[in-house]
Amino acid sequence: MAVKYDKAVVLLSGGLDSATTLALAKEQATTVLALSFDYGQRHVCELDAAKEIARTQNVSHRILSVSLKTIGGSALTADSIAVPKDGDTEKGASAIPVTYVPARNTIFLCYALAIAEVESCSAIYLGVNALDYSGYPDCRPEYIERFQALADIATKGAIEGAPVVIEAPLIALTKAEIIKTGVALGVDYSLTISCYDPDEEGAACGACDSCRLRKQGFQEAGVADPTRYIES
Amino acid sequence: MAVKYDKAVVLLSGGLDSATTLALAKEQATTVLALSFDYGQRHVCELDAAKEIARTQNVSHRILSVSLKTIGGSALTADSIAVPKDGDTEKGASAIPVTYVPARNTIFLCYALAIAEVESCSAIYLGVNALDYSGYPDCRPEYIERFQALADIATKGAIEGAPVVIEAPLIALTKAEIIKTGVALGVDYSLTISCYDPDEEGAACGACDSCRLRKQGFQEAGVADPTRYIES
Repeated sequence: MAVKYDKAVVLLSGGLDSATTLALAKEQATTVLALSFDYGQRHVCELDAAKEIARTQNVSHRILSVSLKTIGGSALTADSIAVPKDGDTEKGASAIPVTYVPARNTIFLCYALAIAEVESCSAIYLGVNALDYSGYPDCRPEYIERFQALADIATKGAIEGAPVVIEAPLIALTKAEIIKTGVALGVDYSLTISCYDPDEEGAACGACDSCRLRKQGFQEAGVADPTRYIES
Repeated sequence: MAVKYDKAVVLLSGGLDSATTLALAKEQATTVLALSFDYGQRHVCELDAAKEIARTQNVSHRILSVSLKTIGGSALTADSIAVPKDGDTEKGASAIPVTYVPARNTIFLCYALAIAEVESCSAIYLGVNALDYSGYPDCRPEYIERFQALADIATKGAIEGAPVVIEAPLIALTKAEIIKTGVALGVDYSLTISCYDPDEEGAACGACDSCRLRKQGFQEAGVADPTRYIES
């Protein structure tokens, strides 16, 4: 793969998709800065996973504290809303599950935009993908296009002729294709956590939407699933 | 003025523009929620001003802590960059001053979008204006248009057919017109702080770009300037 950027920011959640995105970004940018958020998520062991992924992929890593928990409104941040299991997700009229966190990707992208500006990065990589997107509004191609349109004029760098490019390299891939891509790049998926409701040691529940998509992805890719599941 | 919205969020910085915007929003929305940010700003007395403005205008008020200081890159958040005085602003090639905070309005709008979604608000008011905008990229009409385009598809509410409307009622007004509008609505400008470099009691320096625009505004509006300046 040809190098496209001198320096890039990568949003790293600690999950399978972002770990793969980080590996792809390393192919396309000379220097990579991984960025994670401590946003009051239930699954805070994600952050430990992100640290370990950044360490093993040998990139610098920053964790920003952002106050999404005080906003509430999601099963992933509010203790009062349960994570749906075994495909019983209550999606309502819009087919958007309760695990949707209001404006989360938008807030993360904005912080990444600020960091990119201060650190002179020319691209932001994020691991959203449209096929497996579970109905989240901020994981669709048109969402990325509109954020790009905003970024094209929102910053000092943009005005000076160098807008930040938003790269979503997984956007059109299936989970199986993502896994195959990552395996080819040497990603260690045993370090990643996708579960919405893991135990304190980071073992996956195996039953939430995210676990189900991940399991199916490994099966379809023909790759052994290295996930540590909670023993039942 | 006709009521347009059941409930709206208003970004309240504690300055002259946002205090006027709050008064305008109260005319157009039945319920108003004022939102301020503690972002490591030098001029933290702004937040006390915001509290007092919300109290006297009789609206509920939330302050969110956001970590812009850890991002740095601006004279308003980094102690190492001085606030320019007496019009000697170093603007560089792009005419954007060092008081520009990377992606600040974008980050604030994203949080407002999240709050609007959780609190079922149908509009977000913010007090940006294009004529006096000092060269900030995120205070222009096209910026608001592109943020609106993003908001139109970014949230659960948007997907369900009720996107949040971004209202920037001051966008085309001069500082003098803003002051006249606020005076007509009973805004007490003695409570507001516009200075980028006030003293600890909130007295204004009278010399930074923001003080100069404000002073000139009161003069042009023919309104007595209630600002408390640092005695020299």
